[in-house]
Amino acid sequence: MEYDPQNPFARILRDELPCVKVYEDEATLAIMDIMPQADGHVLVLPKEAAAELFELSEESAAACIRTTRKVATAVKAAMGAQGVMIAQFNGSAAGQTVPHVHFHIVPRHEGTSLKPHGAVAADINRLCEIAVRIISALPAPAVA
Amino acid sequence: MEYDPQNPFARILRDELPCVKVYEDEATLAIMDIMPQADGHVLVLPKEAAAELFELSEESAAACIRTTRKVATAVKAAMGAQGVMIAQFNGSAAGQTVPHVHFHIVPRHEGTSLKPHGAVAADINRLCEIAVRIISALPAPAVA
Repeated sequence: MEYDPQNPFARILRDELPCVKVYEDEATLAIMDIMPQADGHVLVLPKEAAAELFELSEESAAACIRTTRKVATAVKAAMGAQGVMIAQFNGSAAGQTVPHVHFHIVPRHEGTSLKPHGAVAADINRLCEIAVRIISALPAPAVA
Repeated sequence: MEYDPQNPFARILRDELPCVKVYEDEATLAIMDIMPQADGHVLVLPKEAAAELFELSEESAAACIRTTRKVATAVKAAMGAQGVMIAQFNGSAAGQTVPHVHFHIVPRHEGTSLKPHGAVAADINRLCEIAVRIISALPAPAVA
């Protein structure tokens, strides 16, 4: 998949489009998926421009998994989830729709199935309400 | 999910069970999945004992994504895949079956669907044949 600087995640990273943010550091941004497969579905984006994992630098990939691990822990607690699925798709054959690397964090509950990928837009108030719960479950930032 | 030191991946890491290895470094091991969802399905394991991503150290998580990125690039080339899915499941509610962290690397081809997770054991000769192709596609190790 070719990188397109006008893709929605690149535009969010440049503050040209809004997002419901749950976490940010120097190398990554974590936002609520607006077409969630389950309540609490979060996306982790590297700030580096790369369409697929193969083109992403080793440093950025490490930053992504660090943020994914941290945010997934908060998502699990905030949603009272029994499980958490981490997924990262490369290429449309693998289900990738936006040409900027992203890691999906999807909370799972026993006996429930996921909504289809990118099918139905969530209510924005509901997304914000869930984001508040996730942010509250994140470790407090270190104070300098 | 509780860590069980007798889980098959822990036993593979202790050389108590065989595996078809494609890559190893000081922190990780990459092996062929013996019940592949598609030809070329590889698992990346941290050597650190942890059942889920939440308990894995930041260093081990970074090592896992470094190996996943490297091996996924080789899998894509070796299998002529159009896409590659990366997945990591935490908890049985999310589809985890073995209580030792593992990252799935699954090559994808347009218009094909995946076999069910962990359903049918592969022919070992076929796994070895594919492993040879993946190893050949990995970058040559640096010579000291």
